[in-house]
Amino acid sequence: MKDIPNLKDFDKRLRDEAAEEPSLEVPSEEPTKHTQIIAIYGKGGIGKSFTLANLSHMMAEQGKRVLLIGCDPKSDTTSLLFGGKACPTIIETSTAKKLAGEEVKIGDVCFKRGGVFAMELGGPEVGRGCGGRGIIHGFELLEKLGFHDWDFDYVLLDFLGDVVCGGFGLPIARDMAQKVIVVGSNDLQSLYVANNVCSAVQYFRKLGGNVGVAGMVINKDDGTGQAQAFAERVDIPVLASIPADDDLRRKSASYEIVGTDATQWGALFAELAENVAGAPPTHPTPLSQDDLIGLFDGKDTGADFVLEPATDEDMRGKNAKPKESLEVVYDDA
Amino acid sequence: MKDIPNLKDFDKRLRDEAAEEPSLEVPSEEPTKHTQIIAIYGKGGIGKSFTLANLSHMMAEQGKRVLLIGCDPKSDTTSLLFGGKACPTIIETSTAKKLAGEEVKIGDVCFKRGGVFAMELGGPEVGRGCGGRGIIHGFELLEKLGFHDWDFDYVLLDFLGDVVCGGFGLPIARDMAQKVIVVGSNDLQSLYVANNVCSAVQYFRKLGGNVGVAGMVINKDDGTGQAQAFAERVDIPVLASIPADDDLRRKSASYEIVGTDATQWGALFAELAENVAGAPPTHPTPLSQDDLIGLFDGKDTGADFVLEPATDEDMRGKNAKPKESLEVVYDDA
Repeated sequence: MKDIPNLKDFDKRLRDEAAEEPSLEVPSEEPTKHTQIIAIYGKGGIGKSFTLANLSHMMAEQGKRVLLIGCDPKSDTTSLLFGGKACPTIIETSTAKKLAGEEVKIGDVCFKRGGVFAMELGGPEVGRGCGGRGIIHGFELLEKLGFHDWDFDYVLLDFLGDVVCGGFGLPIARDMAQKVIVVGSNDLQSLYVANNVCSAVQYFRKLGGNVGVAGMVINKDDGTGQAQAFAERVDIPVLASIPADDDLRRKSASYEIVGTDATQWGALFAELAENVAGAPPTHPTPLSQDDLIGLFDGKDTGADFVLEPATDEDMRGKNAKPKESLEVVYDDA
Repeated sequence: MKDIPNLKDFDKRLRDEAAEEPSLEVPSEEPTKHTQIIAIYGKGGIGKSFTLANLSHMMAEQGKRVLLIGCDPKSDTTSLLFGGKACPTIIETSTAKKLAGEEVKIGDVCFKRGGVFAMELGGPEVGRGCGGRGIIHGFELLEKLGFHDWDFDYVLLDFLGDVVCGGFGLPIARDMAQKVIVVGSNDLQSLYVANNVCSAVQYFRKLGGNVGVAGMVINKDDGTGQAQAFAERVDIPVLASIPADDDLRRKSASYEIVGTDATQWGALFAELAENVAGAPPTHPTPLSQDDLIGLFDGKDTGADFVLEPATDEDMRGKNAKPKESLEVVYDDA
C-alpha cells in the first residue's frame, strides 16, 4: 500500500476536476416545454435495454416522437434497437473529432430505427475521473448539438442503478428529468437497486427537488410476486409486468423487436407506453433493509443462518499475543 | 433543467468532499509482507459472489487463511457464504456506532464460515458523494480495526466492474492490491468489462503502478469459446473454466457451497485456488472495441446492420425551419 509518486498527479487531477467550476452545473436552458424527460434506473442485467428498445419502438409506432439516450458506461442501451450493433458514443466521438479539428454533427452520434431516435452518452475514461463528470460532459455536448431546440414527446434516459453515487444520481439530484421509472424483477438484488433509487428520489425531494417516481416495470416476471409486493409497499404503480417467457427470451437474443403490433406482445408494450405517459411523478416510501428482505421467503435470505463473529485473535492469527492473564492462548496457525 | 437553490449545498458538499485532504490517500502502512491482496473485477451478475465464495472456501479447506472483502455497493459478495444472509457493512455499522458513541469491534463486521473470514465494505450514501470516497473510507476503517496486524495468506477484494471510474478503479490506481483477476463469460458485455479492467491496469502501469493481471475466471462457460479467445488475445491465463451446469446453478440458488472436496466440484476449485496463488501479475494487451466485437459472430454484433444517421431536421421536428433554398422542406410532425 505504498504511495506511487506519479499518481500524485492523478489525485490532483481528480481533485481539480471535482473542484472545477462549474463542476456540477447542468445546462440551464429549458427543454421544449411539452417534452417528458424520463430517467430509467435498474440493476445491470435486469433487461433495461430490452424494455427500453421495445417501449420506445411502441411509442414511435403510436406516433410519438421518442429519443432514447443510453447513460450506462457499458453503452449497451441501443444495441437491441440496432441489431446488436454498438453505435458510436457522444463522448468518444467528441474526443476523436476534437483531435481531428472537426465538429461533431448530429448524424455522427444519433441514429434512427422505426421512428425511434437513439444515442449513447458513453462512459468516463477507464479508471479515471468521476462517472458523474462523464454524464455532465455528455449532456453539455447534447446542448451544443441543439438539444433545447429538438422536438420530442419523450426523452428516455437509461441509467445503470448498481451505483447510485452522486454522479449516477445526478438526473434525480438536478431535476434533469421530471420522473423516474425503475425496472426490477422478483429478486432481492434488483429490488435493492429499485429501493435505493426511491431513497435517492425522496432525499432530493426533501432538498426541494421535483423529480418523482412514475412507477415500476417488472421484467422477467415469474409470478412469485416479490416485485409486485415491493411496488405496493413503496407505494408506486406497476406500469407493466413483462413475463419470463421463452418466446420473448429467444426473440430478444436474436435482436428482434417485439414492441410492435406486428407481434403478440404489442398490446403489452402499448399498455406500458400509455402508463409511462400518464403516470404522475409520485413520492415513494422506500423500505428499510429489513422490510426489503422481509418480502422474500426466509430460506432465500438466510433468516435461520446465524452469523459467527470473528475475534481479534482470529484476525491476528500467528501475530496474536498471548492474553495477559493466566489463560494461555494457543493458536494453530 | 432549472437550478434548485437548495442543491447548491449538495454541489458544495461534493466539491468539499473531493477537495478534502487526504482525499485519495490510502493508509500507508504495509500489510503483513506475505499477504497476497487480490482485487477481483467483473460485470454485475456474472457470478463473482458465486466464484469468490467457493474459491475462498476451498482456499480455507487447503489450510490457507483467507479474508474476503466485498466492495460492491450492493454488498452481496458474502451472501452465498452466509446462507443468503446480508451481513452488516463496515460503513453502515461505523456510522451507527458513531451516533451511539460506541467503537466498532471486529465481531460487529467480520464473520467466519468454514475457515473463511468475510466482511462487506458497504456503498456510498445513496445519491450522494463519490463511490471512491466510500471505498477509501471503508479501508480507513479497516486500518482502525487493525488490518495491518492481521495475518492472512490471501485478502480477496470483490469489485463491481460495470463502472471503472476513478473511484472503483482505485485499488488498481493506488497499488492497494498486487494483482487483479477478472471474471467473465462468453458474452460481449462481460468481456467488455474485463477489457476495461485490463485497460485500467495498463494505464496505471504506465504511470508507475505495479498492479498486474493474474488471469481470468470464465464462469457459466457454455463452450462457445469467446472468453477463451479473449484471454488469449489479451495475453492473460485462464485460471479456471466453471461450466454452465444445472447442478452448479441449483446448488448456488440454494446457497450450497461447492468449493469443497465433499462435492464433485472440489477439484475444479482446488485447481482455481492453486492457479490464483501461483499466477504472477502480468501485463495485459487490452483490445480495441472493434477487436473485442470481432471475437463474436457478426450476427450477434449487428455486423450487417447499417446505422441510419439522424439529421438536424429529424431532431428539430416541427421546430425545423425551412431551408433557405428553393427546396421547401415539408415535415409531417
